[in-house]
Amino acid sequence: MLSAADNDLLTRTAAGTPMGQLFRRFWTPVLLAQELPERDGAPVRVRVMGEDFIAFRDSDGRVGVVEPHCPHRGANLFWGRNEQGGLRCAFHGWKFDVEGNCLDTPCVPQGANYKNSVKLRALPVEERGDMIWAYLGPPETKPPFPAIEFTMLPAEQRFVSKKLQECNWAQACEGGLDTAHFSYLHMSVAESDEDFMASMARSDASIQQERIKWMRDDGAPRFTVIPHDAGLVIGGARQASPGNLYWRISQFLMPNHGYTPNAFPGENYHGQTWVPIDDRSCWVYCYTWNPERPITQAERAKFSEGFAVHAEVDSGWKPLRNRSNDYLIDRTDQKHRSFTGIVGVSEQDACIQDSQGYIADRTREHLGPTDLGIVRFRQLILGAAKALVDGTEPKAASLPDSYLVRCGGAVVDASRTLSDLMIDRFGAPSGHVGAIKTRSDAVAGVSS
Amino acid sequence: MLSAADNDLLTRTAAGTPMGQLFRRFWTPVLLAQELPERDGAPVRVRVMGEDFIAFRDSDGRVGVVEPHCPHRGANLFWGRNEQGGLRCAFHGWKFDVEGNCLDTPCVPQGANYKNSVKLRALPVEERGDMIWAYLGPPETKPPFPAIEFTMLPAEQRFVSKKLQECNWAQACEGGLDTAHFSYLHMSVAESDEDFMASMARSDASIQQERIKWMRDDGAPRFTVIPHDAGLVIGGARQASPGNLYWRISQFLMPNHGYTPNAFPGENYHGQTWVPIDDRSCWVYCYTWNPERPITQAERAKFSEGFAVHAEVDSGWKPLRNRSNDYLIDRTDQKHRSFTGIVGVSEQDACIQDSQGYIADRTREHLGPTDLGIVRFRQLILGAAKALVDGTEPKAASLPDSYLVRCGGAVVDASRTLSDLMIDRFGAPSGHVGAIKTRSDAVAGVSS
Amino acid sequence: MLSAADNDLLTRTAAGTPMGQLFRRFWTPVLLAQELPERDGAPVRVRVMGEDFIAFRDSDGRVGVVEPHCPHRGANLFWGRNEQGGLRCAFHGWKFDVEGNCLDTPCVPQGANYKNSVKLRALPVEERGDMIWAYLGPPETKPPFPAIEFTMLPAEQRFVSKKLQECNWAQACEGGLDTAHFSYLHMSVAESDEDFMASMARSDASIQQERIKWMRDDGAPRFTVIPHDAGLVIGGARQASPGNLYWRISQFLMPNHGYTPNAFPGENYHGQTWVPIDDRSCWVYCYTWNPERPITQAERAKFSEGFAVHAEVDSGWKPLRNRSNDYLIDRTDQKHRSFTGIVGVSEQDACIQDSQGYIADRTREHLGPTDLGIVRFRQLILGAAKALVDGTEPKAASLPDSYLVRCGGAVVDASRTLSDLMIDRFGAPSGHVGAIKTRSDAVAGVSS
Repeated sequence: MLSAADNDLLTRTAAGTPMGQLFRRFWTPVLLAQELPERDGAPVRVRVMGEDFIAFRDSDGRVGVVEPHCPHRGANLFWGRNEQGGLRCAFHGWKFDVEGNCLDTPCVPQGANYKNSVKLRALPVEERGDMIWAYLGPPETKPPFPAIEFTMLPAEQRFVSKKLQECNWAQACEGGLDTAHFSYLHMSVAESDEDFMASMARSDASIQQERIKWMRDDGAPRFTVIPHDAGLVIGGARQASPGNLYWRISQFLMPNHGYTPNAFPGENYHGQTWVPIDDRSCWVYCYTWNPERPITQAERAKFSEGFAVHAEVDSGWKPLRNRSNDYLIDRTDQKHRSFTGIVGVSEQDACIQDSQGYIADRTREHLGPTDLGIVRFRQLILGAAKALVDGTEPKAASLPDSYLVRCGGAVVDASRTLSDLMIDRFGAPSGHVGAIKTRSDAVAGVSS
Repeated sequence: MLSAADNDLLTRTAAGTPMGQLFRRFWTPVLLAQELPERDGAPVRVRVMGEDFIAFRDSDGRVGVVEPHCPHRGANLFWGRNEQGGLRCAFHGWKFDVEGNCLDTPCVPQGANYKNSVKLRALPVEERGDMIWAYLGPPETKPPFPAIEFTMLPAEQRFVSKKLQECNWAQACEGGLDTAHFSYLHMSVAESDEDFMASMARSDASIQQERIKWMRDDGAPRFTVIPHDAGLVIGGARQASPGNLYWRISQFLMPNHGYTPNAFPGENYHGQTWVPIDDRSCWVYCYTWNPERPITQAERAKFSEGFAVHAEVDSGWKPLRNRSNDYLIDRTDQKHRSFTGIVGVSEQDACIQDSQGYIADRTREHLGPTDLGIVRFRQLILGAAKALVDGTEPKAASLPDSYLVRCGGAVVDASRTLSDLMIDRFGAPSGHVGAIKTRSDAVAGVSS
Repeated sequence: MLSAADNDLLTRTAAGTPMGQLFRRFWTPVLLAQELPERDGAPVRVRVMGEDFIAFRDSDGRVGVVEPHCPHRGANLFWGRNEQGGLRCAFHGWKFDVEGNCLDTPCVPQGANYKNSVKLRALPVEERGDMIWAYLGPPETKPPFPAIEFTMLPAEQRFVSKKLQECNWAQACEGGLDTAHFSYLHMSVAESDEDFMASMARSDASIQQERIKWMRDDGAPRFTVIPHDAGLVIGGARQASPGNLYWRISQFLMPNHGYTPNAFPGENYHGQTWVPIDDRSCWVYCYTWNPERPITQAERAKFSEGFAVHAEVDSGWKPLRNRSNDYLIDRTDQKHRSFTGIVGVSEQDACIQDSQGYIADRTREHLGPTDLGIVRFRQLILGAAKALVDGTEPKAASLPDSYLVRCGGAVVDASRTLSDLMIDRFGAPSGHVGAIKTRSDAVAGVSS
């Protein structure tokens, strides 16, 4: 439960808000790279944390993310021609490069020197992991790019997507960190084994019938949280075979990234980054990666149709099952097969998160032991936002290597602690992996 | 004409407003029973006077109307599974019965006693007259259920429907009490008798050509109002055959019920209850009943297609002819056949009431003698709302038997007063009928 | 660049605002005459500068523009029957004529004298130039009707249309006065002559390949502005053949009319009047006229499909290419043929003007030498609005003859000034033409 003031603090990210300031100390995805597929192609509108930008890819493949209005008369550069070396305003032909420099003001008589006196605001941009990342904060605090694993691998070892979510970022993030709900929201209620597994088909858990049944049969996992430089390890333990616990361990990375808790060694990892569009909606950037092997074509096809964190979306990345159509809930299916009657893990998450309201009211909730991860997430991020107001920069931003962490699922003896098993598997309680095994061509970390 | 302050007082029914407090001293329909057709069926969203609820029918057929957000994390119970004995939240499985008691918190480790510490707000509910009625006020002032006649008859003697209306409740109610407008709004302008009657086909008046012509030929009825314990008798007298008056007498029952003035002895009665959704829209619950005989299948078919108070609606009870499509007005028809060019008495009413604005501005009106009923309605209900603010509970709520009234049409000698003819027909000036002739199986007053 | 206060002053025209007061000193088009095609036909809704009215044509062909709500109970007269001599409210039959006089209150008993005590607000109306013009200001300052040329010619010598524009009136007007943008916004980028001219097909300039190339090749015209009693002459000069300048000269007429700069002697003139619906949208009334000959059927057909100032619109005068569909921009066309990828000069204008925002933010712009006309327009109209606040009535309103001006295109020796060439062609620097050659049947200036 939060005070109304802390709920506002947590959820508001417009420029000038404390949480908005904190977010603006970190790199944030603003587009998938595929949304700017070609050099000199069509510009694209971007809205992030209530701020509007126009993005374009120039003749050299560089991406610009600039303020939308031409400094001359305020026409929107979305309508501009993306020409050799820059974007030209359609009204009177002023032209700008990806850094916001004015290259040309052809309607101004020769001799006048307008072009050096105007400049577009242009964000620092990095293209990593098949996404366009931007930095919206003050130049002097621009951090190094964090070692987020999927961005560091060869392109064939990852799959990325995005989806529109019609609620505040924080409750969507909390839903991602809350691994207890799998026993309910994503669970089958079918009695026959065949129906049971069929109704789990869009969940990555479908690969492992045993794990699903452990989740179904123990709906009150015991949680442990381990803080580290980049965020939190959040582990929930359920009863497995006698004497053993089934651990599902997720990561929260500052300020808005979360990794799912499913991957046993060798399996695919999944993660999500929640990027506020405004305070009532967000883009969820979704990624699957495998540090050991390429993502197969069959997997890519499956993810494209909606699977695990990936939603089934239209050409504008809006989920086909969404607020406006009640997520196509099938009440008969809800009665006999799935807990929700809604198809897709991602869509089930969206439905229940959206249902908390456009901005969840945390003043009336009653948190329990399984909400420990959420409590710690709030403490961490509210603390960082308040500290920044007081002048203390967020530590995680300055420690890019601290982001190189993993997590996942494990079955271990009931006597082992979360810290024990993180050390056993990854070498550190934080899940930090000192170095990743990558092919040499991935060193640059840039996808295209 | 009202002051702006009184106009606000009359029209605002959110929790905490004076009129909202008054409304919350009475039972109000919140759904048709058919909207919760089966036990353990799909939950339904309810919005009434700006408050949101979820309604569901449990395994025993009981109906719950509860606050929408689960106390755990605020997920909306609309998405819940309606299981044996209660509604289970889709997020983490907390389960509640129709009284709001928490039956289960499966994600909480055994030993912890959460379920006794949380409770959903649950409204008192009665299922009467094929409708779900709820009481939204303080427990200590919950009144007995009023003797509204259609709710006390066997189901075969009534027909119920509802329609969305996109304006404030009060102007819709005033339109229902204003019987003078029949000479205009619902009137045919056709010259031939055949066309004249054809263009009245959706009006109950169509059964009686003589009456329609009286209404057409005398457009300035003389009004008399008789107050009684539950509300007002409002009678309008028009010239009929020489020496006789054609009286059309309606009832207003506190705080939001109205009966139409058409029924001669033996004919069907019609009534409406205006239930605010918010201050700019309302549900109109519509009912036809006959104290003496079942409503026939032919009548039911006719009402379902839109007739008298019943509108032609879509599957969500939204009228097919509505604000968004200009009620499908046919200007040619308006020129040659009907006064409005709009099909349906109910739709004509909605059009003209909606046209007063989402909330009618009563500071600029010019009321005349035919508006006496409206004047007295406002005095009564504004007086009751103000009295309640001062601590005086509304009398009508405590006198459920006073609601057992009738009204209708009559042709009588011009020397007779309204009071005379009410006594002659019903036994009392108020239209109160001491007892209703019902079959024994209707005594319980519950429809299912 | 304007201060935020002046930007508000310029753009806000609701009743009571300074600019709203100024606008209300002038006659304004509120409908095309064809929107009220027949006597006793359907009433029409009108919204102008945030005020709502109902317009109707009575049995004698006269047009009423009246307040929408019946004084009785506030029903909207849009639903009224347009009967012999007036509009009758559909609720209780009160009837009003085009001057707002109450003709009948049939629901009021005889003897009562209601109809003389109520009156609808009714605007003074003139039907001129195939448009319905109204005056919304105080009666004592109602001006004579201005000598706007297209309204004074026989109907066959003009063509009128209108289009919805989804932005504030002032930036649309500024776009109309800014003739520098033709070298960019409306320009072809095609390399072959054939493609070049084909992609200019919807521009009046298409008739004169030479002029287009001058516009393409000199994108920094030099501007001169000549103020006169009714407004401003705005001339921009581009390099033409050696030693010659190609002048494009437009007119601004107070408070919201603009003439395009294209017409060489004998060619069609075009003009636009920007009428605020509210502060975020306007109707653009568009007109083409030829003082010397009828507009041909071929020209009318071309204009109806969208040409020059005329847009391609649906049955409600909304452009087919508009905000909601990104003006059907074709990015491939933008790359290879036209500067915008949008079809239609009118639509290109609308796109770029809309793109400045619903209300352009003029506090961040950087005006240059080609924006001289815009600067002078703002000075003129802001000055007049401020003067009116101080009690000085606008001079132009009292000088109707001063509106009889022309403008257009010319190629002259580079040594000639704008004033020289205006005198040469029209007889006065203002473009004022002492008398127009009209047929005798056009003297009355009324179109129907």
